Amino acid sequence: MADAIVSVCSGERLAVISDDTVAPLHASGLTEALRNHGRHVSLHTIVPGEAQKSLATAGDLYDRLTDAGLGRKDAIVALGGGVVGDLAGFVASTFMRGIDFVQVPTTTLAAVDASIGGKTAVNTSRGKNLVGTFYPPRAVLISLELLRTQSPRQHAAGLVEALKVAATCDAELFERIEAEAPSLLTMDPPVLLAIISTAITLKAEVVARDEREAGERMVLNYGHTIGHAIEVGEGFRLLHGEAVALGLVAEAQWAQTQGVGEDVCGRITNALSRLGVPTAWREAHIDVAAMAADKKRDGETVRIPVVPKVGTYELQTTPVQTLAAFVANRSE
Amino acid sequence: MADAIVSVCSGERLAVISDDTVAPLHASGLTEALRNHGRHVSLHTIVPGEAQKSLATAGDLYDRLTDAGLGRKDAIVALGGGVVGDLAGFVASTFMRGIDFVQVPTTTLAAVDASIGGKTAVNTSRGKNLVGTFYPPRAVLISLELLRTQSPRQHAAGLVEALKVAATCDAELFERIEAEAPSLLTMDPPVLLAIISTAITLKAEVVARDEREAGERMVLNYGHTIGHAIEVGEGFRLLHGEAVALGLVAEAQWAQTQGVGEDVCGRITNALSRLGVPTAWREAHIDVAAMAADKKRDGETVRIPVVPKVGTYELQTTPVQTLAAFVANRSE
Repeated sequence: MADAIVSVCSGERLAVISDDTVAPLHASGLTEALRNHGRHVSLHTIVPGEAQKSLATAGDLYDRLTDAGLGRKDAIVALGGGVVGDLAGFVASTFMRGIDFVQVPTTTLAAVDASIGGKTAVNTSRGKNLVGTFYPPRAVLISLELLRTQSPRQHAAGLVEALKVAATCDAELFERIEAEAPSLLTMDPPVLLAIISTAITLKAEVVARDEREAGERMVLNYGHTIGHAIEVGEGFRLLHGEAVALGLVAEAQWAQTQGVGEDVCGRITNALSRLGVPTAWREAHIDVAAMAADKKRDGETVRIPVVPKVGTYELQTTPVQTLAAFVANRSE
Repeated sequence: MADAIVSVCSGERLAVISDDTVAPLHASGLTEALRNHGRHVSLHTIVPGEAQKSLATAGDLYDRLTDAGLGRKDAIVALGGGVVGDLAGFVASTFMRGIDFVQVPTTTLAAVDASIGGKTAVNTSRGKNLVGTFYPPRAVLISLELLRTQSPRQHAAGLVEALKVAATCDAELFERIEAEAPSLLTMDPPVLLAIISTAITLKAEVVARDEREAGERMVLNYGHTIGHAIEVGEGFRLLHGEAVALGLVAEAQWAQTQGVGEDVCGRITNALSRLGVPTAWREAHIDVAAMAADKKRDGETVRIPVVPKVGTYELQTTPVQTLAAFVANRSE
């Protein structure tokens, strides 16, 4: 891992940004290895959790990087899950108008989704990810060893993003996740590696065709319009992937009401169940207002992906109101 | 002006960001004209001054933009001087991962320098412009009418940046500024327009060849290494252009001690005097530590432009210590 990092970061100084859960497990090994390569290494940890994806924490990190002597040619190593990756990426993209950074994900979610595609983000008092940049890392370095220390619940939730991209873009991957769910959940190395790398490749291809989310990239938002409203409605008690799982079922069901993808909702629900993540979206609290404030909104409509057949998708422009009404009537 | 803005910003909503000095003079005319073009326009003013170029003010603006309903396809209009332009540009580059913005400078400094080249910035507790992005505006729209409401002192200080780019890149422009200083100071339209547009073109050409400041763009830093240390040392009592004027004289004098540009310091001092800006750099307070914390620093050295002959330059790599010693011994 250290070899790979120093091969893409030429600067003298490396700042490892991590959180207080991950750092005790993995930081000292990494910083020591980097120091053995002759680099000046500083470690900057944050309190774990979404609340740290804030301008205040970014401001604190800028000062710590300045105090550690980082210059424009130096680099940041983001060691952690999605929160650390989004925040450290934002800091890297704006510190001294942008320095290099490398993603080293320690959760499945970060490995298959958050670290791929160059989106960085912090939250504001008005909502999640309302501030950020498009700023690709120099590299994303994935080690299964690092993924082993996350909880089984986190791992399963991360696999939901792999299933999402499979549902819209790759029927074979979808079937494979469904069939091999038990080995995936126990982190059987060849199976997990194959699924993760296929999911990453799919996402990277979508992103390469539409980096700034003008069109096609919106397919990655499948399950996220309602999923995000559930995440907010549940006060972030669910993991991101769990909220997306509920959102996938809800959006597939909504598509059905529009006459799209008759058998899709059932298949998605079945695959998610095999991954052991929740699927009973009707029982969730849903913050409809959060849907209307979504970045993907364009005036009064959202563009939402629908899946006519597993492995294919279309983007549908839909009034926010229609979706809100569907969600509001869920108990009927 | 409004015509030009709507022609480059297609979104329904426009957020004008300005300050409490400029807004009473120019904002109502502009917002009314934009509304007559059928746009939703909101006005967001900040307290004037460098202290507002902060993450805290950026955070406040993100919330105000969200509350005004701005989406990804909408745009920001930065109406003001360098502080408003730097801050509004940073906000535009990071709000929803980047929305369009237009620069409408109301000071000469902003017109010839700050609004050109795509640098946005906020300050941190550790220093000036330590956070920012490279993010070019959709357009920079300059109206001499808007420049008339700045103070004569601000106008003169702004012309220093035009003289700086002339000193390094265009001997003819240098002579013209020197010769036509009186008409420039009274804002004679054809003379001012010619000088401003030539200076902008020169800077834009340098930036186009080196957008991310890997090399050549550093020529624009002429006068700024010591100038910045004076700006900090004087506690920001001087205008930016005034500190740069002192920095230009000091750096030209330093180059002389290195055997570069024998007659250059005298010519620069003379031209600056004709613009009515200060040149007695030896009397200024200079914060040498601020020089060492400069972003352009690379380890223990800085790359500093020197002018062998007016209209030409070289980049010299110099130990920070050498420069610090020169400055420290200034009374000798």
